[in-house]
Amino acid sequence: MNVEEAVDCRRAVEELRELDRLTGGPEGARRVCWTEEWARAREWLRGLLDEIECEVEVDEAGNLWATAPGDSERAVILGGHLDSVPNGGWLDGCLNIIAALESFRVLAPRRRPVTLRLVDWADEEGARFGRSLLGSSACAGTLNPDEVRGLRDRDGVALPDALREHGVELDRMNESHRQLENAAAYLELHIEQGPVLDRLGLPLGVVLGTFGVERHAVRFTGRHAHSGATPMDARRDAFIAAARSAVAFRDDAARRDDVRATTGFVNVRPGIVTAFNGWCEMSLDQRALRADVLADMLEVAKENSGRIAEEEGCEVEWERLWRIEPVPFDGGLIELAEEAVREVAGTSHRLPSGPLHDAAEMARLMPAVMLFVRSLRGLSHTKEEDTPVEDVEMSVRALHRLAIKTMDWVAGRTS
Amino acid sequence: MNVEEAVDCRRAVEELRELDRLTGGPEGARRVCWTEEWARAREWLRGLLDEIECEVEVDEAGNLWATAPGDSERAVILGGHLDSVPNGGWLDGCLNIIAALESFRVLAPRRRPVTLRLVDWADEEGARFGRSLLGSSACAGTLNPDEVRGLRDRDGVALPDALREHGVELDRMNESHRQLENAAAYLELHIEQGPVLDRLGLPLGVVLGTFGVERHAVRFTGRHAHSGATPMDARRDAFIAAARSAVAFRDDAARRDDVRATTGFVNVRPGIVTAFNGWCEMSLDQRALRADVLADMLEVAKENSGRIAEEEGCEVEWERLWRIEPVPFDGGLIELAEEAVREVAGTSHRLPSGPLHDAAEMARLMPAVMLFVRSLRGLSHTKEEDTPVEDVEMSVRALHRLAIKTMDWVAGRTS
Repeated sequence: MNVEEAVDCRRAVEELRELDRLTGGPEGARRVCWTEEWARAREWLRGLLDEIECEVEVDEAGNLWATAPGDSERAVILGGHLDSVPNGGWLDGCLNIIAALESFRVLAPRRRPVTLRLVDWADEEGARFGRSLLGSSACAGTLNPDEVRGLRDRDGVALPDALREHGVELDRMNESHRQLENAAAYLELHIEQGPVLDRLGLPLGVVLGTFGVERHAVRFTGRHAHSGATPMDARRDAFIAAARSAVAFRDDAARRDDVRATTGFVNVRPGIVTAFNGWCEMSLDQRALRADVLADMLEVAKENSGRIAEEEGCEVEWERLWRIEPVPFDGGLIELAEEAVREVAGTSHRLPSGPLHDAAEMARLMPAVMLFVRSLRGLSHTKEEDTPVEDVEMSVRALHRLAIKTMDWVAGRTS
Repeated sequence: MNVEEAVDCRRAVEELRELDRLTGGPEGARRVCWTEEWARAREWLRGLLDEIECEVEVDEAGNLWATAPGDSERAVILGGHLDSVPNGGWLDGCLNIIAALESFRVLAPRRRPVTLRLVDWADEEGARFGRSLLGSSACAGTLNPDEVRGLRDRDGVALPDALREHGVELDRMNESHRQLENAAAYLELHIEQGPVLDRLGLPLGVVLGTFGVERHAVRFTGRHAHSGATPMDARRDAFIAAARSAVAFRDDAARRDDVRATTGFVNVRPGIVTAFNGWCEMSLDQRALRADVLADMLEVAKENSGRIAEEEGCEVEWERLWRIEPVPFDGGLIELAEEAVREVAGTSHRLPSGPLHDAAEMARLMPAVMLFVRSLRGLSHTKEEDTPVEDVEMSVRALHRLAIKTMDWVAGRTS
C-alpha cells in the first residue's frame, strides 16, 4: 500500500466514537474548555500520541502540540480543537484531531522533507467565557490579555483563575507565538456547520476563506400613537420602517453571489397591541468573502434604510457592534486541497466559511486552507449534528492526501 | 339672547382650569377612578350641580346622574367622565361634563319637551384595574361581574374591594340599567385623541361611530440557523416572513378608506446577532367602521401572511386576542350634529372614532352620536394633550345646540 492510502479510516471513526463515549454521550459532547471533561479528553489524546514517534508539549496558551521532525524544520501544521460547546456534536473540532492523528501514525515513522505538527487549540469555542479562538489568537499574537481579563463564567469564576487551574497564565499566553517560528503552512479539516454541501449531495468541499463581518445595531425613531386614533397616512411607524429595511437588506444579499445579511435581535417600543411603534432597533450582520463586496453591501444597506426611514417619516441611526476583515485562504493550497478532494471523492466544491475558525488566525501569518465535510441538514452546535460515516472516512483520507501534497509543496517552495 | 346662544363658554373653560388646579397640575390629571382624587373631583361636581335645578343621584355602578325633568319622561342624556389616566390631559372626559353643566344651567330652569340628563360615568379609562367602560357597560348590561372580579391593581388591591370603598357592590352594578328606562338619545362631546381634525385645520367634527376591532397574534415558524453558515436561499427566516406580512397589512389598510391596521408587539426567537430567527410573533390590530370591510381586511391579511410564509419556507398561525363589532352612530343624530357644528364653526367633518367611548355602550341601546373637538398633534393620554381655548369654547356651544336639537327631535319622534 502506498503512503497516500495507508490511513486507517475506520480506526479514526472508532476513536471519534470512543472520545464521544468518554466525554459525550446521548446529550452531546461535554468538552467545554477549562473543565475537567476537557482535561480528560486531552489526557486521552496524549495517551494516543505517546504511541506515536513524536514530541508532545503544551504551550503557554494551553495549546497542545505534537511534532514529528522532518529533513527541514519548516513545518506543516494540522490544527483542530477537542473543546466543544455544551451538548455539542461528536465531530465539531475533534474530527481534525483524530484525522491528523491517523496521518501522524502513517507519516511520523517515515522520512519526510519537512516537519509535521499537530495542534489541539485551547478554547476555540469560547463556550465558558464568551471569547472564541482564545488559544489560536494568543498564538497568532492577536489576543490582548486586557480585553479578556475581566471575563467571568456564569458562576462568576474569572477567566484568569480558570486558566491557572489548567496551568495557563493569561499574561504569558502570547508567548505561545514562538510555536510558529518555522511554520510554513496550516491545514484544518472541519464539519461545514452549514447546508451547502448537503444540498449539493457532496461529501467534501474546499474552503475559500472565512467571511468578513460587519455587525450593526440599526435604530429607527418615529413617534408612537394610538392604533385606533391615528390614520394610516399620519403615522411615523418605526417598526414598519425597520421591517421594510430588513427585507431590503435580505433582498440585496440574495441578489449577490454567496454573501449573507441577517437580522437577529428585534426590539420595539412601546410594543403593545394598542399603539404602533415609535422606536425599533434591530441587528444587521453582513458577511462576505471580499472586503469590497462587504463595504458595498454596507453602503447599500445604509442608503436603503435612509430612504425607507424618510418615506416612513422616521429617522435612522447606525451603531457598529463589531467587524472583522475577510480572511482569504491561500490560492496554492486551495488548488492542492481541491486535488486531494477530487482524488478521494471524485467531485469538489469551493465555498466560503460562515463561522470563524482557528484557521482564520493562522491565515494571517502563513498559507492556510481548510477542508469541509458535509453537515447533515446544516446542523451544528447541537447534539443532532451529524455526518455520514462514509463521509467522515473520506474526509480523513482527503486530509491525509492534502498533508502529503502540502509537505511536498512546502519543500518545493523552500528548496 | 336666545336659548341657543345662552351658554357661558368662558365659564366652562374657567371651570375646566379649576378642575385641573384641584385634581391635576403640571404633571397632568390625577383623577384615576376609585381613588381619593377622583372622589374629590366628584364632590366638586356635586357642589356645582347643587346650584342648578336638578336631581342628583349615584347609581349602583357608581355613575353620577343629574336629571332635569321635562314635559315627557323621555330623556336626552349628555355623558362624559371625570376620571382620567395617570398624568392625563386636562380635557379628556371632563370636557363633556363641564360643557353639559353649562347646558344644564341654561336649560334646567326652562320648560322643555323632554327630560335632560347628565351622566358622569365611573371608570371609563380602566386605568387602575385595566377594564375600561366599566360604569357604562354595567349600565348597558354588557358587564359580566365574574369577568372582572379577579382584577387587581398594581398594589394587589382587588377590584371589588376598591369598588366597595366607594359604595359600589360589584354584583349589583348591573342594576344601574334601570337608569336607561326612559332614555331616548345619548350625546357625548370628547377630544378627538387623534390628528385628523388638526391636520384639516378644523375645530369640530361629527363622529360616525366607533371602529370594530379584530385583534390577533400572528405567529410565524421557520427554523433558525447560523447567520454565517446558512446561504440566503436556504433560510426559513420567520422574522423576514413577519416583516413582509406587517408591511402587507399596512399597505392594504393604507389603500382603503379610513381604516387602521397596526403591528404592536413583535417578539423573535432566538433574537441574537449570530442567527436568523426561526420564530416570530406579532400583534395585528385591525379597525374599520363597517363590519364587512373589517371582515375583508382580515381575510386579505390572512391570505397575504399565508402566501408570504410559504414563499419564505415558514408556517403561520393566527390566534384571535379580542374583537368587537363596529358601533355606528344614529344617522338622524349625525345630521343634527352636523347642523350644530356648522352653525358654530362654519365647517364640519365626519370621522370615525378610533378609541372606544362610553357612547359605544349606549349606541347599542338607543340613538347616539358624538362630537369631536380637535386634539393638537393628535396627542392624548398624556399631560401634553391640548386643544386651543377658542375650540373648547366652540365645542361647548356645539354640544348645547345639539342638545336642544336632539330634545326637539326626540319630542317629534315620540309625539
